[in-house]
Amino acid sequence: MKRTKVIIALGGNALEEKGLPATAASQLEVVKQTVEYIADIIAAGYEVAIVHGNGPQVGRIHLASEAASDVTPSMPFDVCGAMSQGYIGYHIQQALKPAIAKRGIDLPVVSLVTQMVVDPSDPAFEHPTKPIGPFYSEKEALALADEKGYTVKEDSGRGWRRVVASPMPIKIVEIEPIKALWGKSVMVVSGGGGIPVVEQSDGSLAGVDAVIDKDFAAERLAEDLDADVLLILTEVEHASIYFRMSNEQKLKKLRVEEAERYIEEGHFAAGSMLPKMKASVAFAKSRKGRKAIIASLLKAGEAMEGRSGTAIEG
Amino acid sequence: MKRTKVIIALGGNALEEKGLPATAASQLEVVKQTVEYIADIIAAGYEVAIVHGNGPQVGRIHLASEAASDVTPSMPFDVCGAMSQGYIGYHIQQALKPAIAKRGIDLPVVSLVTQMVVDPSDPAFEHPTKPIGPFYSEKEALALADEKGYTVKEDSGRGWRRVVASPMPIKIVEIEPIKALWGKSVMVVSGGGGIPVVEQSDGSLAGVDAVIDKDFAAERLAEDLDADVLLILTEVEHASIYFRMSNEQKLKKLRVEEAERYIEEGHFAAGSMLPKMKASVAFAKSRKGRKAIIASLLKAGEAMEGRSGTAIEG
Repeated sequence: MKRTKVIIALGGNALEEKGLPATAASQLEVVKQTVEYIADIIAAGYEVAIVHGNGPQVGRIHLASEAASDVTPSMPFDVCGAMSQGYIGYHIQQALKPAIAKRGIDLPVVSLVTQMVVDPSDPAFEHPTKPIGPFYSEKEALALADEKGYTVKEDSGRGWRRVVASPMPIKIVEIEPIKALWGKSVMVVSGGGGIPVVEQSDGSLAGVDAVIDKDFAAERLAEDLDADVLLILTEVEHASIYFRMSNEQKLKKLRVEEAERYIEEGHFAAGSMLPKMKASVAFAKSRKGRKAIIASLLKAGEAMEGRSGTAIEG
Repeated sequence: MKRTKVIIALGGNALEEKGLPATAASQLEVVKQTVEYIADIIAAGYEVAIVHGNGPQVGRIHLASEAASDVTPSMPFDVCGAMSQGYIGYHIQQALKPAIAKRGIDLPVVSLVTQMVVDPSDPAFEHPTKPIGPFYSEKEALALADEKGYTVKEDSGRGWRRVVASPMPIKIVEIEPIKALWGKSVMVVSGGGGIPVVEQSDGSLAGVDAVIDKDFAAERLAEDLDADVLLILTEVEHASIYFRMSNEQKLKKLRVEEAERYIEEGHFAAGSMLPKMKASVAFAKSRKGRKAIIASLLKAGEAMEGRSGTAIEG
């Protein structure tokens, strides 16, 4: 029997606990809890690949690298992204393998270092919005802008920060090996949305300072792998319209047209539910029979059975 | 026709230029030069997987992490190793793909995050020898030893450093996906010898503070993949007996028994030619027809044709 193929997009909250110190040991503990829910899905017979976020991790790697620049050269943002794939992928491998073994399944778990092609003329590069790295004083920030060409912005009254673009993912460079491993291994791919690269005129690739939304990256992967379900796991059980208002309405099942109308009406928060909903719509529209589900990590199994979450279908 | 399978062990010198600042940009430039030699081997029809060293890189990641510990928690050594796999793997992927494309070969290049099981009762853990991370004063070093349980040693008159064990690699955790991709992709695996892990009583794995010799890791991989050739690339064209003495004798072809005798006679320097020769002997002995070659990166192609390097056969 052909097994249902599921791409899981794991949010940052699935990788660390707010309020705990951001140590490797505490990340590993959180990852161990998180993978239990994923192991349940694998044990239920689904074929799974995982795309994870890396916002807090890549931020801290970058921060450490900048803070230590007097003892060793600081690393550019694309390299920090590559490092975060190693870091998070390693923990998921280490935690998920015994979790599925406990359920009687002998399947390898492996992370692939993954580059994601973005378009250098993506309008996001004109208007960088994603704050990364340390806080600076206005003076320091403007000096960095001058010296390194950074775009800097004041961030919510907390100080100045560097901002980078969040362009749309276009092409997963390593899609062929990913396809070759599909079904033979639980894969962690496009971590942090993938390392952002642009195509050069000679066909080679070059890293760029950018962050890629992991929900859009997971959607790209789901299409490329001809997956059946894009499962976007987050902190809330459902997407809502009139979110946190007295007339809040939790969404259970949505047709693509409804989802698009709600998007247009501005029901979903930028940088939060909006990219999830947009990625879901894109996947559900991409071919008949494809389904996207936005659900709570803690109810991931129920969501796969239609008992929790917001399902978007074409 | 069955293609000859080659595992290439790439030394640290193939990843960075001595004397240049250790920036990501300069690593990428060096990697671009290095992969030309590997691309030649692939173009000659060999099937290739790459194991690279990570000594300088993991050292600097660890150093940056420790130096920045007042702004963000420092990362343990296993995580630094995982990050170095992401960093170096990304650069090899980015550089090698166009290098083989230029030679008319359309083959993906991908790095797999790889754990390596080591034995917690390996005698290396009793006598840690590998210096890592920053230099400390004697007082600071002893305080760290006290506080964090580090083993510290005075390093060649340059100050005190932490030392970790270099245990033997036993088992590549992700060997199944590696086997599945063999022939379908040029793989970068077991970077830095692999992330060192030990098996827990419940069968799960836990990272340990250790470094694994990449030559032994490559030998392990070569056996597991039933490779034909283990190609260890370094800075010199040949292994020698009476190295740098007036009667130095460059070795071209060696039987295993000769190599073993020279090892016993102490011809090869610990931490340099000795592990290369030991790994070569282990591979050449492991099955009839298997060959190990120690050669200069710059003569890698010639070495594969028997025109350079030191070949060790059973």
